[in-house]
Amino acid sequence: MALQIWDDFPTIQTKLTALTPYLIEAARIKQPAVNERVQSLLRHGGKLIRAGLFYLFSEFGPDQNEERLQAGAAAIELLHLATLIHDDVIDQAPERRGTQTVHTRVGNRNAIYAGDLLFTLYFDQVLKSAETFNDIAVNTHAMHGILDGELDQYDLNYHLKETVDQYLKEIEGKTAKLFALACAQGAKLAHADMIIVESAEQIGRSIGLAFQILDDVLDYTGEQQDIRKPILQDIQQGIYTLPLLFALEAQPEKLRPYLKRGIQLTETDLQTIQALVTKSDGVAQARTMANELTDQALLDIKMLPETPARQALETLTRRLLQREQ
Amino acid sequence: MALQIWDDFPTIQTKLTALTPYLIEAARIKQPAVNERVQSLLRHGGKLIRAGLFYLFSEFGPDQNEERLQAGAAAIELLHLATLIHDDVIDQAPERRGTQTVHTRVGNRNAIYAGDLLFTLYFDQVLKSAETFNDIAVNTHAMHGILDGELDQYDLNYHLKETVDQYLKEIEGKTAKLFALACAQGAKLAHADMIIVESAEQIGRSIGLAFQILDDVLDYTGEQQDIRKPILQDIQQGIYTLPLLFALEAQPEKLRPYLKRGIQLTETDLQTIQALVTKSDGVAQARTMANELTDQALLDIKMLPETPARQALETLTRRLLQREQ
Repeated sequence: MALQIWDDFPTIQTKLTALTPYLIEAARIKQPAVNERVQSLLRHGGKLIRAGLFYLFSEFGPDQNEERLQAGAAAIELLHLATLIHDDVIDQAPERRGTQTVHTRVGNRNAIYAGDLLFTLYFDQVLKSAETFNDIAVNTHAMHGILDGELDQYDLNYHLKETVDQYLKEIEGKTAKLFALACAQGAKLAHADMIIVESAEQIGRSIGLAFQILDDVLDYTGEQQDIRKPILQDIQQGIYTLPLLFALEAQPEKLRPYLKRGIQLTETDLQTIQALVTKSDGVAQARTMANELTDQALLDIKMLPETPARQALETLTRRLLQREQ
Repeated sequence: MALQIWDDFPTIQTKLTALTPYLIEAARIKQPAVNERVQSLLRHGGKLIRAGLFYLFSEFGPDQNEERLQAGAAAIELLHLATLIHDDVIDQAPERRGTQTVHTRVGNRNAIYAGDLLFTLYFDQVLKSAETFNDIAVNTHAMHGILDGELDQYDLNYHLKETVDQYLKEIEGKTAKLFALACAQGAKLAHADMIIVESAEQIGRSIGLAFQILDDVLDYTGEQQDIRKPILQDIQQGIYTLPLLFALEAQPEKLRPYLKRGIQLTETDLQTIQALVTKSDGVAQARTMANELTDQALLDIKMLPETPARQALETLTRRLLQREQ
């Protein structure tokens, strides 16, 4: 796995390195063809950002029960993996992390069931990590929020009036909830003070929101090979992200005629849209919002007890959200 | 809902009638369009066989905690509903229970996420009904088995050598596991003796297997309007059920040439296959196997303590599996 981002955080990197074989075992599926794809997805990557954040926050608690924490970290990554497999079926994405997606090799049917099965494996790890029913309920609650975010997108599609607030609400569910869960569970399972657990949830949320916004910005600014998801398809389907929404506020008359083409949108139209969004300051405004969220996270991090973990968390947040100083 | 099958079991019918509004509330989804379809599926039907079996077995225990049992019964039906929604996406079925399927109205994307969300709502009810971590683990274990059964089908597709044993293993996961879970959880959550819980699981398994076999028989014998799932598509995809497997054993040379056409199979080919299966005794042999499983269930039921619940269970089993005396 691509764990270089953790090079400067040796305690976390050690834990993530140990997590990898555990995760591969926890995600094992009986059927060889399906298993081969899921294992390949695990092996090909992932910086394990969510598990890393989980471990960073676990360092704020006194109880370092290795087994329980490992199950907690694995749970987060399995939930993430389950949602990715279903997302890829939905987007009919051919590749993820540079390897063929599950459905491409074993069909939509088995990819849907494989995602379902991973939700089960996720719950197995939740059960291993939890000490109380409430620990489990926090997980179903987060999973509910994640799926709510995905379903909210449906109401928004093709709404040219989609506002920035609605976008934020949607990425809150789609991305931020899982980051918040990772951070809060790390603190909670290590028995950190309740006030730290709550703060961890807030910090995870801010980092998740900024992370998603920057990811959406990349769709407009990245080199072709950096673009991980075909945005043409998204825009055709009426899914508009923050840079486009800001550009739409600034230059509605220029952008609307293109967006209204919906499913008829061509690759050339898309290039025009990309150029308009970049020129109209949509990208810059989205970046500003990501920076504000990053600042908020850094502010909340500063309020945590002064420990090496806090320093590490601050450095990682800056790097992850491209605010290197 | 179509609760007439419970007319002669008034205590169960009363509980199922009370379960209906609870279930509708437990399955509520925030997004109106998605919610409308899920609620319609719930309102249009289902005999609530699994919840009914759950309640029948709960009568073998001393602890009739209404709230806990209701959550347990709802959990079973929500798990069933979640799998149905994903099944319908996979089969691209236009209707279920005489109403439009979820994906037909809100698209595959939202139907997949809606199924995922129902798995979450299922777990919420599991948490409400469970008293110990083990009660929860029994559920994840059953869910694992169900999905394993679905994925096992993949390995079997297009295998002309699929054996009866493999078919049984597959419907064990696909159908019998949920029946077994329903029966065992009913007994368990009412604090019945462990030996009754284990027996409940066995009985549920036998009933589930017989139920699925009879369902598969109907594909070959039912009037057109009774056929709930297009079997042409199944056979094209290499999914062979018991009547066809028995017929294939008896007359391989006649059936193989048709089956080998796979995706090229026409409606006319299918009629020929249906005629061959019916004539070749495949249907009769499948019915015999269902009857043997029913007898096994009835035998195990006879070993339960002699109570009105036992009598009701026996009568219901005979009716459900068309063994009216």
